[in-house]
Amino acid sequence: MDSDERIILKLAYDGTGFAGWQKQSSSSQPTVQGTLEKCLSQLFSEPVKTIGSGRTDAGVHALGQIVHFDCPKPLANYDLQKSLNSMLPASMVVRGVWRAPQDFHALASATGKHYRYRIWNSPTKNPFVRHFTLWERRPIDLHWLNQSSRYLIGTHDFKSFQTAGTAVSSTERTVHLARWLERRHHLIEFQISGSGFLKQMIRNIVGTLLDLQLSGASPEHILPILEAKDRARAKGTASPEGLCLMRVEYPPLLDSQLIRL
Amino acid sequence: MDSDERIILKLAYDGTGFAGWQKQSSSSQPTVQGTLEKCLSQLFSEPVKTIGSGRTDAGVHALGQIVHFDCPKPLANYDLQKSLNSMLPASMVVRGVWRAPQDFHALASATGKHYRYRIWNSPTKNPFVRHFTLWERRPIDLHWLNQSSRYLIGTHDFKSFQTAGTAVSSTERTVHLARWLERRHHLIEFQISGSGFLKQMIRNIVGTLLDLQLSGASPEHILPILEAKDRARAKGTASPEGLCLMRVEYPPLLDSQLIRL
Repeated sequence: MDSDERIILKLAYDGTGFAGWQKQSSSSQPTVQGTLEKCLSQLFSEPVKTIGSGRTDAGVHALGQIVHFDCPKPLANYDLQKSLNSMLPASMVVRGVWRAPQDFHALASATGKHYRYRIWNSPTKNPFVRHFTLWERRPIDLHWLNQSSRYLIGTHDFKSFQTAGTAVSSTERTVHLARWLERRHHLIEFQISGSGFLKQMIRNIVGTLLDLQLSGASPEHILPILEAKDRARAKGTASPEGLCLMRVEYPPLLDSQLIRL
Repeated sequence: MDSDERIILKLAYDGTGFAGWQKQSSSSQPTVQGTLEKCLSQLFSEPVKTIGSGRTDAGVHALGQIVHFDCPKPLANYDLQKSLNSMLPASMVVRGVWRAPQDFHALASATGKHYRYRIWNSPTKNPFVRHFTLWERRPIDLHWLNQSSRYLIGTHDFKSFQTAGTAVSSTERTVHLARWLERRHHLIEFQISGSGFLKQMIRNIVGTLLDLQLSGASPEHILPILEAKDRARAKGTASPEGLCLMRVEYPPLLDSQLIRL
């Protein structure tokens, strides 16, 4: 009899010091997954494998990364959140723990993701936000960006915005929301959510939008790039620091079966 | 003839990676002053010495540190702010440059300083503010803190709140403002300003106030500690990360002679 309980963690992390989410066999820099698994394995005195809702690149942050694992010991004997938080480095925190049905899968069950991308838009750099924003000196036109971003909403083949390196069966994705919020002083925030995102898709979208706007193109110029389905047509990749995974969505039926611990 | 011009810089820095303000002959970790002088000396191709309004400890931040130096070359040939900002590390930024009268002295002329101290007050740590706040899990009573802090306002001998190590002629100082702002979610901010502060005085005040409040003492309990003029009577030293030098004040007559470059 397999008595393993499937457990979900909601994780926040400052990605600055990590070589991204995914565990690596050979890296001098720690990864988020590797650090988490080390703590879980130590806590339960046996190897624990985790699965995240998706990989975040080196330097990318998360406020609501979702992770599942099968707990090798009866969970009632542990205060999992408290124990983990005392073991994890200061750059990582468990924000919640749930018991989940056995068919919950952090990656495969996910139906949506919400991200934000932040930009420090000022001629003068700001030392205090440098790990959490892209710094752009030239004035950014938010109205332009909102006009252009509207063309991304809907179901499209986003191949032009995919960085090569990960095999995927389809490059079609659905974007539900892509909006730029009102500027707060020098801080600009882009919110994007959708069914899922290709490798570096958000960073490639932000980089392309900024390049187009700052070079004086019209907002419609994003359309032929999207339609080309060719990465060479899009522009630069925005730096990872500005990006943060905010929330992962799961089907309501699955959500309703989670029990908060 | 000495043609040196006295120049003032307003400096902001993230103190996280620095061994404090003051230049040290033997330290593996860079200091803010050492880093600044290295850039200035490189820019002018000769050694430049700087004087700051005061030392900040390792890990303490500044939004408005004031520094003066005597410029060894005609300044008209340089765009000082732009050049320095391109040379300084991402953790430091020059926010303004002024030409000052020869009798301006960043340390000796200063008549007041404004600091803030920030606390993350939540049972759960926050990876994103860890370099800029003290983390306190237990609920903090702001009304209590404001009541107790009122006893610090005025001219007192603050010897009880001085960390030993720096010789000063007098331990009397005047505190003009000491107030705790309304909580913003889990973030608490203490503002304190005065004629000047003894070594680690603000950190010792914050540490003592928190210790007293969390141990159930009455707000008046700060009075006998202040009156004892004995460091042993006060409580802990709050960690440096929460502290930030906001602004330095100079006499209006001197201020009026500064020319922004």
